[in-house]
Amino acid sequence: MTNENLKKFEKLERKNKGLINLNPIQKGGELTKVAEKALVEFGDGYSIYDLSPGLELMEMPLIKEFIQETMPKFLGADIVRITLGVREGIFNVIHSIAKPGKTILVDGNRHYTTIIAAERTGLKVVEVPNSGEPEYKINVEDYEDLIKKHKPALVLLTYPDGNYGNLPDAKRLGEIVKRYQVPYLINGAYAVGRMPISMKELGADFIIGSGQKSMASSGPIGVLGMDKKWEKIILRKSKIYPQQEIEFLGSELRGTAMATLMASFPAVLERVKNWEKEKKKAQWFSKEMEKLGLKQIGDKPHKHDLIFFKAEPFYKISLKHPKGRFFLHYELKKRGITGIKPGLTKHFKLSTFSIDKEDLEKVIKAFREILKK
Amino acid sequence: MTNENLKKFEKLERKNKGLINLNPIQKGGELTKVAEKALVEFGDGYSIYDLSPGLELMEMPLIKEFIQETMPKFLGADIVRITLGVREGIFNVIHSIAKPGKTILVDGNRHYTTIIAAERTGLKVVEVPNSGEPEYKINVEDYEDLIKKHKPALVLLTYPDGNYGNLPDAKRLGEIVKRYQVPYLINGAYAVGRMPISMKELGADFIIGSGQKSMASSGPIGVLGMDKKWEKIILRKSKIYPQQEIEFLGSELRGTAMATLMASFPAVLERVKNWEKEKKKAQWFSKEMEKLGLKQIGDKPHKHDLIFFKAEPFYKISLKHPKGRFFLHYELKKRGITGIKPGLTKHFKLSTFSIDKEDLEKVIKAFREILKK
Repeated sequence: MTNENLKKFEKLERKNKGLINLNPIQKGGELTKVAEKALVEFGDGYSIYDLSPGLELMEMPLIKEFIQETMPKFLGADIVRITLGVREGIFNVIHSIAKPGKTILVDGNRHYTTIIAAERTGLKVVEVPNSGEPEYKINVEDYEDLIKKHKPALVLLTYPDGNYGNLPDAKRLGEIVKRYQVPYLINGAYAVGRMPISMKELGADFIIGSGQKSMASSGPIGVLGMDKKWEKIILRKSKIYPQQEIEFLGSELRGTAMATLMASFPAVLERVKNWEKEKKKAQWFSKEMEKLGLKQIGDKPHKHDLIFFKAEPFYKISLKHPKGRFFLHYELKKRGITGIKPGLTKHFKLSTFSIDKEDLEKVIKAFREILKK
Repeated sequence: MTNENLKKFEKLERKNKGLINLNPIQKGGELTKVAEKALVEFGDGYSIYDLSPGLELMEMPLIKEFIQETMPKFLGADIVRITLGVREGIFNVIHSIAKPGKTILVDGNRHYTTIIAAERTGLKVVEVPNSGEPEYKINVEDYEDLIKKHKPALVLLTYPDGNYGNLPDAKRLGEIVKRYQVPYLINGAYAVGRMPISMKELGADFIIGSGQKSMASSGPIGVLGMDKKWEKIILRKSKIYPQQEIEFLGSELRGTAMATLMASFPAVLERVKNWEKEKKKAQWFSKEMEKLGLKQIGDKPHKHDLIFFKAEPFYKISLKHPKGRFFLHYELKKRGITGIKPGLTKHFKLSTFSIDKEDLEKVIKAFREILKK
């Protein structure tokens, strides 16, 4: 390893800075100004110990209040733990409550890591299929027969899913599972921190949120809310170290992300109140895109900022364009827009979250121009 | 939740800024200047995707080279994966290779999370005891009889441990385990990034390092090096998503810490070359402290910057001091020094890593003054 060869690692740069960003995975994770400060303040590894020197993390007054009071209220949960992300949180739950060989029941729109978390635990997975094109809806009534048939150790709902931004009837599913006494987990990676959501109101046992996806935080970090009846199982203690929680390897809380999660929270709480506006903006955007000949897939009218489009007109252009399927990416970039996966034209997803209407109008205009050209 | 009440989360501050810091858990995790830039550049959640827009993280040229070439060379390993930390890396390994009910054999100086990772996997743990006061040495020859007796699924050595900074004969243990064909894991949280270390040279199957503890990185992040013979077991693939690794839930690599780990690496590679100087400085410091009537515990002469002292003279003062056992913390702070756990006087650990001799002389002087007073 020569030093010359390593120099490149010292010059890591973000491409696409300063552009209007439509990337669904990034929109909700942009730091607030105060979180940027917290990031720098607690950037050094393990500097979080300097928040309250001499105390363990879970004993620090600010962290304690955040985990024991602030987050439970925010999530509508009894108990909250910090996880290393949503996939890790899902693993925490199913690894704690389901023995290998058991079955879990999940929606057909689930994230791929839900399946892998189940494989890691040695579980079988049964899926509640979606309705297919064009809405890809999860009808939660379909869970009932499958619950009767498979007696699952857990029921999981992705709310919304990360492909179509569909919001199934999570509350109705809460009523169904209650009848069969099946634990119910909501994957709220794209909900918690964007829109109002309460685990208890939806009748769930667990809710998981993502710091980096929707809580204006650097990652990897997640929040896991639970009903207190699961305390003894999820928070089971070490026999050798009776204060320590086995499933979290003592504690998964450490590092820079925690500081940003806390620093952003007051702003996150505020922005959640604007959800109706965000929703209307998404609906307006969807209609404008359809006027250009695209077709919005998923819930209609749409109820979330993550929106999936079929874009035949762009696909047709790509077949003849010298840049091929990458033309859309380049044409948008020329117009100051990024976030649609390079190479996609036939269909793509995007997010309108926290982008003001003026910028979205620029986006519509850009799409219109590219079509005309 | 009133806004007024939440304001405090927006003002997170590091105490003890600008002081000479002796905290072993923090010394090796301080960011380099270029890593600070990378931290800010990739502070937003999931902004790491903007390193190479359109590519999956593991496909990005810089990340690919770092994981597939740079880190394997650095660790003396065939294959490397990024983990969420050392405890998570230990869990990754034992969860993959040991069935519940099996036994693992670990050193008596192991971190508490080693025990908890075993409990999480349903394993029994047998410990190789240390020699007790004053050296707390792990004699690796003691592993042999216990290997014969328990036929462990894994042998683990903490190198060095986080209490005494003892460096057992890891290479000799490599020879022993080879005879019995037992997989051998080195927890190098306080070695990798501080001192030269090679998994292959030590005869180990696995090595784990910590970004936030010793690689000048923000956390949580770790590196797991392994021998290629473990590829199929540790990196086993999902049946449904054949590209994805089950044990890592797809990939644990995401977020800000990865950018800092890469940005700091060229400097980390350089500092490892200074290890002999670091060691001599630690030995000198230990002698100076003993001149004050303290007693250094652990390896002697000491071979690591993490040093444990018995400090009877300070304990005696604490019994009469109005500030009680917190007096040492306050007295050191007055003199611009931090990092010894507040409340400890009878014994404490500290680290001399990356502190220049002039500052360490100030530390010695401060201890001397406090004793005189």
